[in-house]
Amino acid sequence: MREYLRDNERLDDLQYKGLKIIQKKDGFCFGVDAVLLSNFAGVRKGARVIDIGTGTGIIAILLAAKTQAREVVGIDIQRDVADMAARSVRLNNLEEKVKILCCDVKNAAREFGPASFDYVVCNPPYMAANAGLVNPNDAKAISRHEIKCSLEDIIAASAEILVPGGKIAVIYRPHRFADMIYLMRRGGLEPKKVRFVHPSPSKKCTMVLVEASKGERPNMTILSPLCIRDETGEYSREIEEIYGKA
Amino acid sequence: MREYLRDNERLDDLQYKGLKIIQKKDGFCFGVDAVLLSNFAGVRKGARVIDIGTGTGIIAILLAAKTQAREVVGIDIQRDVADMAARSVRLNNLEEKVKILCCDVKNAAREFGPASFDYVVCNPPYMAANAGLVNPNDAKAISRHEIKCSLEDIIAASAEILVPGGKIAVIYRPHRFADMIYLMRRGGLEPKKVRFVHPSPSKKCTMVLVEASKGERPNMTILSPLCIRDETGEYSREIEEIYGKA
Repeated sequence: MREYLRDNERLDDLQYKGLKIIQKKDGFCFGVDAVLLSNFAGVRKGARVIDIGTGTGIIAILLAAKTQAREVVGIDIQRDVADMAARSVRLNNLEEKVKILCCDVKNAAREFGPASFDYVVCNPPYMAANAGLVNPNDAKAISRHEIKCSLEDIIAASAEILVPGGKIAVIYRPHRFADMIYLMRRGGLEPKKVRFVHPSPSKKCTMVLVEASKGERPNMTILSPLCIRDETGEYSREIEEIYGKA
Repeated sequence: MREYLRDNERLDDLQYKGLKIIQKKDGFCFGVDAVLLSNFAGVRKGARVIDIGTGTGIIAILLAAKTQAREVVGIDIQRDVADMAARSVRLNNLEEKVKILCCDVKNAAREFGPASFDYVVCNPPYMAANAGLVNPNDAKAISRHEIKCSLEDIIAASAEILVPGGKIAVIYRPHRFADMIYLMRRGGLEPKKVRFVHPSPSKKCTMVLVEASKGERPNMTILSPLCIRDETGEYSREIEEIYGKA
Protein backbone atom coordinates (compact mmCIF):
# COMPACT_ATOMS: atom_id res chain seq x y z
CA MET A 1 0.00 0.00 0.00
CA ARG A 2 2.91 2.35 0.64
CA GLU A 3 3.28 3.15 -3.06
CA TYR A 4 -0.03 5.01 -2.89
CA LEU A 5 1.08 7.34 -0.12
CA ARG A 6 2.94 10.64 -0.43
CA ASP A 7 4.74 12.51 2.33
CA ASN A 8 2.48 13.72 5.13
CA GLU A 9 -0.27 11.26 4.23
CA ARG A 10 -1.72 8.40 6.17
CA LEU A 11 -3.90 5.44 5.28
CA ASP A 12 -7.13 4.85 7.22
CA ASP A 13 -9.46 1.88 7.20
CA LEU A 14 -13.14 2.73 6.61
CA GLN A 15 -14.21 -0.45 8.45
CA TYR A 16 -16.61 -1.19 5.62
CA LYS A 17 -16.12 -3.80 2.90
CA GLY A 18 -12.35 -3.41 3.34
CA LEU A 19 -12.41 0.15 1.99
CA LYS A 20 -9.46 2.40 2.73
CA ILE A 21 -8.89 6.14 2.46
CA ILE A 22 -5.78 8.27 2.12
CA GLN A 23 -5.81 11.44 4.23
CA LYS A 24 -3.34 14.23 4.94
CA LYS A 25 -1.77 13.95 8.37
CA ASP A 26 -2.30 17.66 9.03
CA GLY A 27 -5.24 18.22 6.67
CA PHE A 28 -8.98 18.01 6.90
CA CYS A 29 -9.85 14.43 7.84
CA PHE A 30 -13.18 12.84 7.08
CA GLY A 31 -15.60 12.66 9.94
CA VAL A 32 -19.05 11.64 10.88
CA ASP A 33 -20.39 14.22 8.34
CA ALA A 34 -19.28 12.11 5.39
CA VAL A 35 -20.70 8.91 6.80
CA LEU A 36 -24.04 10.52 7.66
CA LEU A 37 -24.33 12.22 4.28
CA SER A 38 -23.59 9.06 2.30
CA ASN A 39 -26.18 7.26 4.42
CA PHE A 40 -28.79 10.02 4.01
CA ALA A 41 -28.47 10.48 0.25
CA GLY A 42 -31.25 8.61 -1.57
CA VAL A 43 -29.14 7.57 -4.57
CA ARG A 44 -31.07 5.25 -6.87
CA LYS A 45 -29.90 2.37 -9.02
CA GLY A 46 -28.32 3.54 -12.25
CA ALA A 47 -27.92 7.15 -11.08
CA ARG A 48 -25.08 9.34 -12.22
CA VAL A 49 -23.80 11.12 -9.12
CA ILE A 50 -21.41 14.01 -8.51
CA ASP A 51 -19.68 14.82 -5.23
CA ILE A 52 -18.80 18.53 -5.20
CA GLY A 53 -15.66 19.29 -3.20
CA THR A 54 -14.85 15.63 -2.76
CA GLY A 55 -11.74 16.20 -0.60
CA THR A 56 -10.37 12.79 0.40
CA GLY A 57 -13.00 11.19 -1.86
CA ILE A 58 -14.64 9.55 1.12
CA ILE A 59 -18.24 10.30 0.11
CA ALA A 60 -17.71 9.29 -3.53
CA ILE A 61 -16.07 6.03 -2.42
CA LEU A 62 -18.78 5.23 0.15
CA LEU A 63 -21.57 5.94 -2.37
CA ALA A 64 -19.89 3.77 -4.98
CA ALA A 65 -19.67 0.93 -2.47
CA LYS A 66 -23.08 1.38 -0.82
CA THR A 67 -25.40 2.27 -3.69
CA GLN A 68 -26.12 0.99 -7.16
CA ALA A 69 -25.09 4.28 -8.75
CA ARG A 70 -23.92 3.91 -12.33
CA GLU A 71 -21.09 6.40 -11.87
CA VAL A 72 -19.83 8.69 -9.14
CA VAL A 73 -17.78 11.73 -10.16
CA GLY A 74 -15.83 13.56 -7.45
CA ILE A 75 -14.55 17.04 -8.14
CA ASP A 76 -12.19 19.17 -6.08
CA ILE A 77 -10.58 22.50 -6.84
CA GLN A 78 -7.30 21.59 -5.13
CA ARG A 79 -5.08 19.58 -7.45
CA ASP A 80 -3.10 17.76 -4.74
CA VAL A 81 -6.34 16.88 -2.92
CA ALA A 82 -7.94 15.54 -6.12
CA ASP A 83 -4.75 13.55 -6.81
CA MET A 84 -4.91 12.03 -3.33
CA ALA A 85 -8.60 11.12 -3.75
CA ALA A 86 -7.83 9.52 -7.12
CA ARG A 87 -5.18 7.36 -5.44
CA SER A 88 -7.74 6.28 -2.82
CA VAL A 89 -10.09 5.28 -5.64
CA ARG A 90 -7.37 3.17 -7.29
CA LEU A 91 -6.38 1.67 -3.96
CA ASN A 92 -9.96 0.45 -3.55
CA ASN A 93 -10.19 -0.77 -7.18
CA LEU A 94 -13.11 1.55 -7.84
CA GLU A 95 -11.71 3.27 -10.98
CA GLU A 96 -14.52 1.81 -13.10
CA LYS A 97 -17.20 3.49 -11.06
CA VAL A 98 -15.55 6.54 -9.47
CA LYS A 99 -13.88 9.34 -11.44
CA ILE A 100 -12.00 12.13 -9.67
CA LEU A 101 -11.39 15.42 -11.46
CA CYS A 102 -9.67 18.62 -10.48
CA CYS A 103 -12.41 21.13 -11.35
CA ASP A 104 -13.84 24.34 -10.00
CA VAL A 105 -17.55 23.99 -9.21
CA LYS A 106 -18.12 27.25 -11.10
CA ASN A 107 -16.99 25.42 -14.28
CA ALA A 108 -18.96 22.23 -13.65
CA ALA A 109 -21.76 23.00 -16.12
CA ARG A 110 -19.21 23.74 -18.84
CA GLU A 111 -17.17 20.64 -17.95
CA PHE A 112 -20.04 18.16 -17.75
CA GLY A 113 -22.89 19.85 -19.62
CA PRO A 114 -26.30 20.88 -18.29
CA ALA A 115 -28.69 18.23 -16.91
CA SER A 116 -25.92 15.63 -16.79
CA PHE A 117 -26.36 14.26 -13.25
CA ASP A 118 -29.20 12.62 -11.33
CA TYR A 119 -27.82 13.35 -7.91
CA VAL A 120 -25.44 15.84 -6.31
CA VAL A 121 -23.86 15.31 -2.90
CA CYS A 122 -21.90 17.99 -1.11
CA ASN A 123 -20.30 18.62 2.27
CA PRO A 124 -19.67 22.30 1.62
CA PRO A 125 -17.46 24.77 3.43
CA TYR A 126 -19.68 26.03 6.22
CA MET A 127 -17.92 29.20 7.31
CA ALA A 128 -18.62 32.36 5.33
CA ALA A 129 -15.34 33.59 3.81
CA ASN A 130 -15.31 36.57 6.13
CA ALA A 131 -16.30 34.72 9.31
CA GLY A 132 -14.02 33.43 12.03
CA LEU A 133 -10.29 32.87 12.01
CA VAL A 134 -9.05 31.59 8.71
CA ASN A 135 -6.84 28.56 9.16
CA PRO A 136 -3.24 29.28 8.12
CA ASN A 137 -3.06 25.76 6.67
CA ASP A 138 -4.52 26.52 3.25
CA ALA A 139 -5.99 23.11 2.39
CA LYS A 140 -7.91 23.03 5.67
CA ALA A 141 -9.04 26.63 5.22
CA ILE A 142 -10.41 25.86 1.76
CA SER A 143 -12.39 22.95 3.19
CA ARG A 144 -13.86 25.00 6.03
CA HIS A 145 -14.27 28.49 4.58
CA GLU A 146 -15.93 29.75 1.45
CA ILE A 147 -12.60 30.82 -0.01
CA LYS A 148 -12.79 29.07 -3.35
CA CYS A 149 -16.53 28.63 -3.61
CA SER A 150 -19.59 29.88 -1.83
CA LEU A 151 -22.76 28.02 -1.01
CA GLU A 152 -24.36 30.11 -3.75
CA ASP A 153 -21.86 28.83 -6.33
CA ILE A 154 -22.55 25.24 -5.31
CA ILE A 155 -26.31 25.67 -5.54
CA ALA A 156 -26.14 27.51 -8.86
CA ALA A 157 -23.90 24.83 -10.37
CA SER A 158 -26.07 22.01 -8.99
CA ALA A 159 -29.23 23.56 -10.44
CA GLU A 160 -27.52 23.57 -13.84
CA ILE A 161 -25.98 20.10 -13.86
CA LEU A 162 -28.99 18.27 -12.38
CA VAL A 163 -31.67 16.74 -14.58
CA PRO A 164 -35.23 18.01 -13.88
CA GLY A 165 -36.40 16.25 -10.72
CA GLY A 166 -32.77 15.45 -9.89
CA LYS A 167 -31.74 15.74 -6.26
CA ILE A 168 -29.04 17.24 -4.11
CA ALA A 169 -28.12 16.11 -0.60
CA VAL A 170 -26.03 18.38 1.59
CA ILE A 171 -24.72 18.23 5.14
CA TYR A 172 -24.36 21.62 6.75
CA ARG A 173 -24.17 23.50 10.00
CA PRO A 174 -27.34 24.80 11.68
CA HIS A 175 -26.05 28.36 12.07
CA ARG A 176 -26.32 28.71 8.28
CA PHE A 177 -29.43 26.61 7.73
CA ALA A 178 -31.55 29.64 6.80
CA ASP A 179 -28.93 30.59 4.18
CA MET A 180 -29.17 27.08 2.75
CA ILE A 181 -32.96 27.04 2.54
CA TYR A 182 -33.10 30.55 1.15
CA LEU A 183 -30.47 29.95 -1.53
CA MET A 184 -31.88 26.56 -2.53
CA ARG A 185 -35.39 27.94 -2.95
CA ARG A 186 -34.11 30.96 -4.88
CA GLY A 187 -31.95 28.70 -7.05
CA GLY A 188 -34.79 26.37 -8.02
CA LEU A 189 -33.78 23.49 -5.76
CA GLU A 190 -36.71 22.90 -3.43
CA PRO A 191 -35.72 21.53 -0.01
CA LYS A 192 -37.97 18.51 0.51
CA LYS A 193 -36.43 16.34 3.22
CA VAL A 194 -34.48 17.46 6.26
CA ARG A 195 -32.89 15.70 9.17
CA PHE A 196 -31.31 17.37 12.15
CA VAL A 197 -28.38 15.73 13.93
CA HIS A 198 -27.99 16.22 17.68
CA PRO A 199 -25.12 15.00 19.90
CA SER A 200 -27.83 13.64 22.25
CA PRO A 201 -31.62 14.05 22.61
CA SER A 202 -31.34 17.04 24.96
CA LYS A 203 -28.63 18.92 23.04
CA LYS A 204 -28.84 21.54 20.30
CA CYS A 205 -28.50 20.49 16.70
CA THR A 206 -24.91 20.39 15.39
CA MET A 207 -25.40 19.19 11.80
CA VAL A 208 -28.21 19.42 9.27
CA LEU A 209 -28.93 17.01 6.40
CA VAL A 210 -31.00 18.47 3.56
CA GLU A 211 -32.25 16.85 0.36
CA ALA A 212 -33.66 19.17 -2.31
CA SER A 213 -35.23 18.44 -5.69
CA LYS A 214 -34.79 20.46 -8.85
CA GLY A 215 -37.98 22.18 -9.94
CA GLU A 216 -40.34 20.43 -7.54
CA ARG A 217 -43.17 21.91 -5.47
CA PRO A 218 -42.66 22.95 -1.84
CA ASN A 219 -43.61 20.23 0.64
CA MET A 220 -41.02 19.61 3.33
CA THR A 221 -40.73 16.52 5.50
CA ILE A 222 -38.68 16.86 8.66
CA LEU A 223 -37.57 13.42 9.75
CA SER A 224 -37.11 12.22 13.32
CA PRO A 225 -34.01 13.72 14.98
CA LEU A 226 -30.81 11.74 14.50
CA CYS A 227 -29.06 11.56 17.85
CA ILE A 228 -25.41 10.49 17.93
CA ARG A 229 -25.63 9.29 21.51
CA ASP A 230 -28.58 8.41 23.70
CA GLU A 231 -29.31 9.88 27.15
CA THR A 232 -26.96 7.40 28.80
CA GLY A 233 -24.00 8.58 26.69
CA GLU A 234 -23.81 5.41 24.56
CA TYR A 235 -23.91 5.59 20.76
CA SER A 236 -27.53 5.47 19.68
CA ARG A 237 -28.85 2.35 18.01
CA GLU A 238 -29.30 4.23 14.77
CA ILE A 239 -25.69 5.44 14.73
CA GLU A 240 -24.52 1.90 15.41
CA GLU A 241 -26.63 0.73 12.49
CA ILE A 242 -25.25 3.45 10.21
CA TYR A 243 -21.68 2.64 11.16
CA GLY A 244 -22.42 -1.05 10.95
CA LYS A 245 -23.55 -0.46 7.39
CA ALA A 246 -21.01 2.24 6.66
CA MET B 1 -70.20 33.02 33.97
CA ARG B 2 -73.19 32.35 31.72
CA GLU B 3 -73.60 36.04 30.89
CA TYR B 4 -70.32 35.89 28.93
CA LEU B 5 -71.46 33.07 26.66
CA ARG B 6 -73.38 33.32 23.40
CA ASP B 7 -75.18 30.52 21.60
CA ASN B 8 -72.92 27.73 20.38
CA GLU B 9 -70.13 28.70 22.77
CA ARG B 10 -68.58 26.82 25.63
CA LEU B 11 -66.32 27.76 28.51
CA ASP B 12 -63.07 25.86 29.06
CA ASP B 13 -60.67 25.94 31.97
CA LEU B 14 -57.00 26.56 31.04
CA GLN B 15 -55.88 24.80 34.21
CA TYR B 16 -53.49 27.66 34.86
CA LYS B 17 -53.97 30.41 37.46
CA GLY B 18 -57.72 29.89 37.16
CA LEU B 19 -57.77 31.22 33.57
CA LYS B 20 -60.76 30.40 31.40
CA ILE B 21 -61.40 30.62 27.68
CA ILE B 22 -64.56 30.90 25.61
CA GLN B 23 -64.55 28.75 22.45
CA LYS B 24 -67.09 27.99 19.74
CA LYS B 25 -68.62 24.56 20.10
CA ASP B 26 -68.17 23.83 16.40
CA GLY B 27 -65.25 26.21 15.73
CA PHE B 28 -61.51 26.03 15.86
CA CYS B 29 -60.53 25.15 19.43
CA PHE B 30 -57.17 25.98 20.92
CA GLY B 31 -54.71 23.17 21.07
CA VAL B 32 -51.19 22.27 21.98
CA ASP B 33 -49.95 24.81 19.35
CA ALA B 34 -51.06 27.76 21.45
CA VAL B 35 -49.56 26.38 24.63
CA LEU B 36 -46.23 25.56 22.96
CA LEU B 37 -46.02 28.94 21.23
CA SER B 38 -46.74 30.93 24.37
CA ASN B 39 -44.09 28.87 26.15
CA PHE B 40 -41.53 29.29 23.35
CA ALA B 41 -41.91 33.05 22.86
CA GLY B 42 -39.13 34.93 24.66
CA VAL B 43 -41.26 37.91 25.71
CA ARG B 44 -39.31 40.26 27.96
CA LYS B 45 -40.45 42.41 30.86
CA GLY B 46 -42.11 45.60 29.68
CA ALA B 47 -42.55 44.40 26.09
CA ARG B 48 -45.48 45.47 23.95
CA VAL B 49 -46.74 42.34 22.23
CA ILE B 50 -49.18 41.69 19.40
CA ASP B 51 -50.89 38.36 18.65
CA ILE B 52 -51.83 38.28 14.98
CA GLY B 53 -54.95 36.20 14.29
CA THR B 54 -55.69 35.81 17.97
CA GLY B 55 -58.78 33.59 17.50
CA THR B 56 -60.06 32.62 20.96
CA GLY B 57 -57.43 34.93 22.46
CA ILE B 58 -55.71 31.98 24.11
CA ILE B 59 -52.14 33.05 23.26
CA ALA B 60 -52.72 36.68 24.25
CA ILE B 61 -54.26 35.58 27.55
CA LEU B 62 -51.50 33.06 28.31
CA LEU B 63 -48.78 35.61 27.51
CA ALA B 64 -50.45 38.22 29.70
CA ALA B 65 -50.56 35.73 32.56
CA LYS B 66 -47.13 34.13 32.07
CA THR B 67 -44.87 37.02 31.10
CA GLN B 68 -44.18 40.52 32.33
CA ALA B 69 -45.30 42.05 29.05
CA ARG B 70 -46.53 45.63 29.42
CA GLU B 71 -49.39 45.11 27.00
CA VAL B 72 -50.66 42.34 24.74
CA VAL B 73 -52.79 43.29 21.74
CA GLY B 74 -54.71 40.53 19.98
CA ILE B 75 -56.10 41.16 16.52
CA ASP B 76 -58.47 39.05 14.47
CA ILE B 77 -60.15 39.75 11.17
CA GLN B 78 -63.40 38.01 12.16
CA ARG B 79 -65.62 40.33 14.22
CA ASP B 80 -67.51 37.61 16.11
CA VAL B 81 -64.24 35.83 16.93
CA ALA B 82 -62.65 39.07 18.19
CA ASP B 83 -65.78 39.74 20.24
CA MET B 84 -65.57 36.29 21.80
CA ALA B 85 -61.85 36.77 22.61
CA ALA B 86 -62.64 40.15 24.20
CA ARG B 87 -65.22 38.47 26.43
CA SER B 88 -62.61 35.89 27.49
CA VAL B 89 -60.28 38.76 28.40
CA ARG B 90 -62.97 40.40 30.55
CA LEU B 91 -63.90 37.08 32.11
CA ASN B 92 -60.27 36.72 33.26
CA ASN B 93 -60.08 40.35 34.44
CA LEU B 94 -57.22 41.04 32.06
CA GLU B 95 -58.69 44.11 30.33
CA GLU B 96 -55.88 46.29 31.71
CA LYS B 97 -53.20 44.28 29.99
CA VAL B 98 -54.90 42.64 27.00
CA LYS B 99 -56.66 44.56 24.21
CA ILE B 100 -58.57 42.73 21.48
CA LEU B 101 -59.26 44.46 18.19
CA CYS B 102 -61.04 43.42 15.02
CA CYS B 103 -58.37 44.30 12.46
CA ASP B 104 -56.98 42.93 9.22
CA VAL B 105 -53.25 42.20 9.50
CA LYS B 106 -52.77 44.07 6.23
CA ASN B 107 -53.92 47.24 8.02
CA ALA B 108 -51.88 46.68 11.20
CA ALA B 109 -49.13 49.17 10.35
CA ARG B 110 -51.75 51.86 9.63
CA GLU B 111 -53.71 50.98 12.76
CA PHE B 112 -50.78 50.84 15.20
CA GLY B 113 -48.00 52.74 13.42
CA PRO B 114 -44.62 51.43 12.33
CA ALA B 115 -42.15 50.13 14.94
CA SER B 116 -44.85 49.99 17.59
CA PHE B 117 -44.32 46.48 18.98
CA ASP B 118 -41.41 44.63 20.60
CA TYR B 119 -42.75 41.16 19.95
CA VAL B 120 -45.16 39.51 17.51
CA VAL B 121 -46.68 36.08 18.09
CA CYS B 122 -48.66 34.23 15.46
CA ASN B 123 -50.21 30.82 14.90
CA PRO B 124 -50.92 31.42 11.21
CA PRO B 125 -53.18 29.54 8.82
CA TYR B 126 -50.93 26.74 7.54
CA MET B 127 -52.74 25.61 4.43
CA ALA B 128 -52.17 27.59 1.24
CA ALA B 129 -55.52 29.05 0.09
CA ASN B 130 -55.60 26.67 -2.87
CA ALA B 131 -54.53 23.52 -0.98
CA GLY B 132 -56.74 20.79 0.38
CA LEU B 133 -60.45 20.76 1.02
CA VAL B 134 -61.74 24.06 2.28
CA ASN B 135 -63.87 23.61 5.35
CA PRO B 136 -67.48 24.62 4.73
CA ASN B 137 -67.61 26.09 8.22
CA ASP B 138 -66.22 29.52 7.40
CA ALA B 139 -64.67 30.45 10.77
CA LYS B 140 -62.70 27.21 10.84
CA ALA B 141 -61.64 27.63 7.20
CA ILE B 142 -60.28 31.10 7.89
CA SER B 143 -58.22 29.73 10.77
CA ARG B 144 -56.75 26.88 8.74
CA HIS B 145 -56.45 28.29 5.22
CA GLU B 146 -54.85 31.45 3.90
CA ILE B 147 -58.22 32.86 2.90
CA LYS B 148 -58.06 36.23 4.58
CA CYS B 149 -54.30 36.55 4.94
CA SER B 150 -51.23 34.80 3.63
CA LEU B 151 -48.00 34.04 5.43
CA GLU B 152 -46.49 36.77 3.28
CA ASP B 153 -49.00 39.34 4.59
CA ILE B 154 -48.22 38.36 8.18
CA ILE B 155 -44.48 38.65 7.67
CA ALA B 156 -44.74 41.95 5.79
CA ALA B 157 -46.95 43.45 8.52
CA SER B 158 -44.69 42.12 11.29
CA ALA B 159 -41.60 43.62 9.67
CA GLU B 160 -43.36 46.99 9.67
CA ILE B 161 -44.83 47.02 13.16
CA LEU B 162 -41.76 45.62 14.96
CA VAL B 163 -39.09 47.87 16.41
CA PRO B 164 -35.56 47.21 15.04
CA GLY B 165 -34.29 44.09 16.81
CA GLY B 166 -37.88 43.21 17.71
CA LYS B 167 -38.86 39.56 17.48
CA ILE B 168 -41.56 37.36 16.06
CA ALA B 169 -42.40 33.84 17.22
CA VAL B 170 -44.50 31.58 15.02
CA ILE B 171 -45.74 28.01 15.22
CA TYR B 172 -46.14 26.37 11.85
CA ARG B 173 -46.29 23.09 10.01
CA PRO B 174 -43.13 21.45 8.65
CA HIS B 175 -44.47 21.00 5.12
CA ARG B 176 -44.29 24.79 4.73
CA PHE B 177 -41.14 25.42 6.77
CA ALA B 178 -39.09 26.36 3.70
CA ASP B 179 -41.78 28.93 2.76
CA MET B 180 -41.51 30.39 6.25
CA ILE B 181 -37.71 30.68 6.22
CA TYR B 182 -37.67 32.03 2.69
CA LEU B 183 -40.34 34.66 3.33
CA MET B 184 -38.89 35.73 6.68
CA ARG B 185 -35.40 36.20 5.23
CA ARG B 186 -36.78 38.08 2.24
CA GLY B 187 -38.94 40.23 4.51
CA GLY B 188 -36.06 41.28 6.77
CA LEU B 189 -36.98 39.01 9.69
CA GLU B 190 -33.99 36.75 10.24
CA PRO B 191 -34.91 33.32 11.67
CA LYS B 192 -32.59 32.88 14.64
CA LYS B 193 -34.03 30.17 16.86
CA VAL B 194 -35.94 27.07 15.81
CA ARG B 195 -37.45 24.15 17.64
CA PHE B 196 -39.01 21.13 16.02
CA VAL B 197 -41.86 19.30 17.72
CA HIS B 198 -42.21 15.55 17.27
CA PRO B 199 -45.02 13.29 18.58
CA SER B 200 -42.24 10.99 19.89
CA PRO B 201 -38.45 10.71 19.41
CA SER B 202 -38.74 8.33 16.46
CA LYS B 203 -41.51 10.18 14.61
CA LYS B 204 -41.39 12.88 11.98
CA CYS B 205 -41.79 16.51 13.00
CA THR B 206 -45.39 17.76 13.15
CA MET B 207 -44.94 21.36 14.31
CA VAL B 208 -42.20 23.95 14.01
CA LEU B 209 -41.48 26.84 16.37
CA VAL B 210 -39.49 29.71 14.84
CA GLU B 211 -38.26 32.94 16.41
CA ALA B 212 -36.94 35.61 14.05
CA SER B 213 -35.43 39.02 14.70
CA LYS B 214 -35.95 42.15 12.67
CA GLY B 215 -32.81 43.26 10.88
CA GLU B 216 -30.39 40.91 12.61
CA ARG B 217 -27.55 38.89 11.09
CA PRO B 218 -28.02 35.24 10.08
CA ASN B 219 -26.99 32.82 12.82
CA MET B 220 -29.51 30.11 13.52
CA THR B 221 -29.69 27.97 16.63
CA ILE B 222 -31.70 24.76 16.35
CA LEU B 223 -32.72 23.68 19.83
CA SER B 224 -33.11 20.12 21.05
CA PRO B 225 -36.19 18.38 19.64
CA LEU B 226 -39.36 18.82 21.68
CA CYS B 227 -41.06 15.44 21.92
CA ILE B 228 -44.69 15.31 23.06
CA ARG B 229 -44.37 11.75 24.28
CA ASP B 230 -41.38 9.61 25.14
CA GLU B 231 -40.62 6.17 23.67
CA THR B 232 -42.91 4.51 26.21
CA GLY B 233 -45.92 6.56 25.05
CA GLU B 234 -46.09 8.71 28.20
CA TYR B 235 -46.06 12.51 28.01
CA SER B 236 -42.44 13.64 28.05
CA ARG B 237 -41.09 15.34 31.12
CA GLU B 238 -40.73 18.57 29.20
CA ILE B 239 -44.36 18.56 28.06
CA GLU B 240 -45.46 17.89 31.62
CA GLU B 241 -43.38 20.85 32.74
CA ILE B 242 -44.84 23.09 30.02
CA TYR B 243 -48.38 22.09 30.90
CA GLY B 244 -47.58 22.34 34.58
CA LYS B 245 -46.57 25.92 33.96
CA ALA B 246 -49.21 26.59 31.32
